[in-house]
Amino acid sequence: MHTTEIIVRGYYIDVFGHVNNARYLEFLEEARWALFDEKANFADLAREGLIFTVVNINISFEQPAYLHDVLCVETGLDQLGHRSAILRQIVKNKATGKVVADAKVTFVFVDIKAQKAVSLEGRLKERVMQALK
Amino acid sequence: MHTTEIIVRGYYIDVFGHVNNARYLEFLEEARWALFDEKANFADLAREGLIFTVVNINISFEQPAYLHDVLCVETGLDQLGHRSAILRQIVKNKATGKVVADAKVTFVFVDIKAQKAVSLEGRLKERVMQALK
Amino acid sequence: MHTTEIIVRGYYIDVFGHVNNARYLEFLEEARWALFDEKANFADLAREGLIFTVVNINISFEQPAYLHDVLCVETGLDQLGHRSAILRQIVKNKATGKVVADAKVTFVFVDIKAQKAVSLEGRLKERVMQALK
Amino acid sequence: MHTTEIIVRGYYIDVFGHVNNARYLEFLEEARWALFDEKANFADLAREGLIFTVVNINISFEQPAYLHDVLCVETGLDQLGHRSAILRQIVKNKATGKVVADAKVTFVFVDIKAQKAVSLEGRLKERVMQALK
Repeated sequence: MHTTEIIVRGYYIDVFGHVNNARYLEFLEEARWALFDEKANFADLAREGLIFTVVNINISFEQPAYLHDVLCVETGLDQLGHRSAILRQIVKNKATGKVVADAKVTFVFVDIKAQKAVSLEGRLKERVMQALK
Repeated sequence: MHTTEIIVRGYYIDVFGHVNNARYLEFLEEARWALFDEKANFADLAREGLIFTVVNINISFEQPAYLHDVLCVETGLDQLGHRSAILRQIVKNKATGKVVADAKVTFVFVDIKAQKAVSLEGRLKERVMQALK
Repeated sequence: MHTTEIIVRGYYIDVFGHVNNARYLEFLEEARWALFDEKANFADLAREGLIFTVVNINISFEQPAYLHDVLCVETGLDQLGHRSAILRQIVKNKATGKVVADAKVTFVFVDIKAQKAVSLEGRLKERVMQALK
Repeated sequence: MHTTEIIVRGYYIDVFGHVNNARYLEFLEEARWALFDEKANFADLAREGLIFTVVNINISFEQPAYLHDVLCVETGLDQLGHRSAILRQIVKNKATGKVVADAKVTFVFVDIKAQKAVSLEGRLKERVMQALK
């Protein structure tokens, strides 16, 4: 599992005084980029025309987050299917350990030329499991 | 059902050349604010301490959206439960009619003093159904 | 002069209860895209390798803007120099007429191949004046 | 002088393939929050009703920034006037040292009750100089 820390700044907050919904998707994306940087950049796959593509995000907002809160985004593999896989990304308040948001992010690798998702098998399956487990 | 139009600008696009995931949550929120403005502002409820609160968003990204695309966000009530209700928000490409993104947004009304979700019954149920159907 | 209307939504607001600084640059950009759509799309120039490029933004924040405020972004040409030109973009509160933000946006057209700004003369000068005056 | 590092992610990029203008204001704000956290939180002043308020940002975009670039935001005091002061915030590409953006951020402390900027003298002047020099 991979962890990314994010400090809640004033511009993440919305009119309700807590972090805005849309920002959480940026936090999740930040964590995925950080994970890819550290554990398995898919840039070589992208050069071959295989693009990591998010097809679904299912996010529950459990607790509000406030200015100066330190959040930890924990990212790991949840499920690996034939064509798609699911990342679990849990946003926790570092000080209290409480879950702030809990997300499942379903992704595929799209073959740009064929314009469709490829099977997650062989080398690709290994790469994904290596990177995300 | 309520419809909000959004024109895709250059700053909605990310490194992959299409609208970024997080922006879609802003589109959905924009559509909800527009709907509330037109059909049923919950500001009076807020003054009584009942806050419209999103607890889950489940969004599927069906088709990419590109610069200059005109998108329509169609918002309607999907389900009305005892404590929570679900909005369906479908983002379509206006020119082609194709679904770009399809979201279910679960919300509750939180009683700020009690710090918990109230039952969606009586006057509150009527208000929600009036506004969102 | 060209005018774009923007309604202040809850996700534009930051921890200080008013519209966040960075959002104003999105409002200005929204207004420029709308202006280009209506009065003079520079897409043909882009295809020839001449890219509209902002090199400086000087923005004063005069008055805060709050939830539900309707803002008007007025955009017009301020100055036309040899290589650069300046747009003036004034954000006003529609109800009160008060200036919320006042910006000067300096731009050039960059020749992508040569990687430098071209002179604003001849056809290009005419295009800019036609579009922005 | 204070330095904040930012890694350019895919969602900072816009349709032109480089970091969008509005994001730079978020980078500048991120750097200011980080500086305040480390060197001089003005939260105590805020509790007394004195709010740090940005009144002008003058930002030049010198070089584009691309995906994976590591940026350093250097923040220091540029000028200290009677009622306002100016922060200089320079965004550099860490690898090349080249200036990506160069900003002057003018701020005041607003007395919330009186609704106007206070003089930067005595204790307030010391606090600002201590924090930002």
